Amino acid sequence: MEKKDLFLGVDTGGTGVKFVVTDRSGARVSSGEVSTDPRSIRESMERLAGAVAAPLGGAPGFPRLAGLGMACAGIVNSASGFLGRSPNLLGWQDTNLAAEIGVVFPGIPIALVNDVNGALYGEFQEGAGRGSRNLVMIALGTGVGGGVIVDGALVLGTHFGAGEIGHMVLDPDGPTCTCGGRGCLEAWAGSTGLVRRAREVAEAADPESPLARLVASHRASLNTFEMAGLAQKGDPATTEIFHTAGRRLGQAVGNIVNLLDPDCVIIGGGVAQAGDLILGPCREAVPGLVLAAEAKNVPVVPAKLGPLAASVGAACLAREAEQAG
Amino acid sequence: MEKKDLFLGVDTGGTGVKFVVTDRSGARVSSGEVSTDPRSIRESMERLAGAVAAPLGGAPGFPRLAGLGMACAGIVNSASGFLGRSPNLLGWQDTNLAAEIGVVFPGIPIALVNDVNGALYGEFQEGAGRGSRNLVMIALGTGVGGGVIVDGALVLGTHFGAGEIGHMVLDPDGPTCTCGGRGCLEAWAGSTGLVRRAREVAEAADPESPLARLVASHRASLNTFEMAGLAQKGDPATTEIFHTAGRRLGQAVGNIVNLLDPDCVIIGGGVAQAGDLILGPCREAVPGLVLAAEAKNVPVVPAKLGPLAASVGAACLAREAEQAG
Repeated sequence: MEKKDLFLGVDTGGTGVKFVVTDRSGARVSSGEVSTDPRSIRESMERLAGAVAAPLGGAPGFPRLAGLGMACAGIVNSASGFLGRSPNLLGWQDTNLAAEIGVVFPGIPIALVNDVNGALYGEFQEGAGRGSRNLVMIALGTGVGGGVIVDGALVLGTHFGAGEIGHMVLDPDGPTCTCGGRGCLEAWAGSTGLVRRAREVAEAADPESPLARLVASHRASLNTFEMAGLAQKGDPATTEIFHTAGRRLGQAVGNIVNLLDPDCVIIGGGVAQAGDLILGPCREAVPGLVLAAEAKNVPVVPAKLGPLAASVGAACLAREAEQAG
Repeated sequence: MEKKDLFLGVDTGGTGVKFVVTDRSGARVSSGEVSTDPRSIRESMERLAGAVAAPLGGAPGFPRLAGLGMACAGIVNSASGFLGRSPNLLGWQDTNLAAEIGVVFPGIPIALVNDVNGALYGEFQEGAGRGSRNLVMIALGTGVGGGVIVDGALVLGTHFGAGEIGHMVLDPDGPTCTCGGRGCLEAWAGSTGLVRRAREVAEAADPESPLARLVASHRASLNTFEMAGLAQKGDPATTEIFHTAGRRLGQAVGNIVNLLDPDCVIIGGGVAQAGDLILGPCREAVPGLVLAAEAKNVPVVPAKLGPLAASVGAACLAREAEQAG
């Protein structure tokens, strides 16, 4: 019989199931992606099993697989294996996710975590947070998520509800948020909020202005990458939209640093690819908002691992679970 | 020789050094207070030594003293024993506090913590936070401080700068704060901010209105206890000042619950004695601000231990340090 020497790290989102296979040292043996079946965990896991069977020694036994880590969008109860609310995986939510995975990967120890915590853990172990003990990540995607590590351990919260940094209210009279509230960080710094603001500004601007023309030519498909391109060419209206988001991000980072005094703050997600357009005003704002002199100069750095961060983190958690157990 | 069976918990503020002496079970043997000499740690510790000599078996050896815990206002480095910035103890700051204490209490193990974390730890072990694992405290005093416990341990921060909840910015266009910033929680919910707001409202009101008369009769000495008395008699203007503070406190609590998902939030400090005037609007605001369904109904409770909380917490830390070491 072959030795159980490999670990599978998986990141399930609404459209894709990304995975990495690592050895015991963390070195990557294989990686890839299969499409998610958002109605069926079983079907999605069968697709994953097909893609990883060869490196893991063959289905259905996967003789080389020592542990599986799964990062999943939604409220993930790491202790019970239960997946709660998960708006992008409606057919998966409110089920015992660990048990469903176990049908396709029988007898394999399973570690579960939510997707942002998975990405944070990946950055902590192998990316922008290496060497940190106290770490915060803010993921600027369609929405805004986050995660916290204190003294080397993920803060999951009493109800596995920690890390909802996107819904920090920065001004109760601010713009409406998808959550129904107002003035949440997400309403300024998530891509939905940024695109909406671009449309508002374009609406009020000269129709021949660069932003109005960009909006007119991308009615439904406008995204923050195109907006960042326009800002990087020097368009002041678009630049100001990113700068406003960056200052609000700075307010959120300042609030978090005052609360937790981490040694590093990581900014990830697609919007973070706007780089200094958003990180510059954020970094300028933070020192003036932090009380403790020693904590003012906390590094605010971009994420390093890219789209595989959460599967890398999930693989780390699988390896650690095996060592601990 | 007598057995080392007692612990001394101390809380040093700008005016008083409060203390409790406990046995190994935490039962209180003695308690009291001596005045702080804000210029001299040595002199203050000599006064303390005089007050505790009898229960501890006599100075200078204190044969029954097994450990000393000290909660102190300011930035406290629990690892090095160093006291950094401490605005109310100017003659103490930037010194090796543990070494100075050791001159008067030689050979006694010393545990250091800042004052709000001391109070939080007291509430966690013996007060309003008993049974919690994840706990946040907000102390509404002249200023606003705070502390965080995750999985049973105080979150001190990388530079011992965690817990500065009072400087969470809730609206960058809000009132000026003592820190130089704007819209900090402290500017709304600390007693300095509440009293200032009362003066502003009184200034603009009918001079015969109850609040204007209270302000006129207490020029320099106006405090939140008198304000609360007036609000409790039904004065709408004064009530609204507390309600606004309570809603802002709710915004801060919502932000913290979204970030950390604690099982309990404790509100302490003198302003918290206004009770439901401030806790009512806070509790009303929180559920609508918290994203995770399971975390919405986090209890927001008043502190229980009163002015001895930090010395009780310091004694707990001294006992735990002995057990661990």
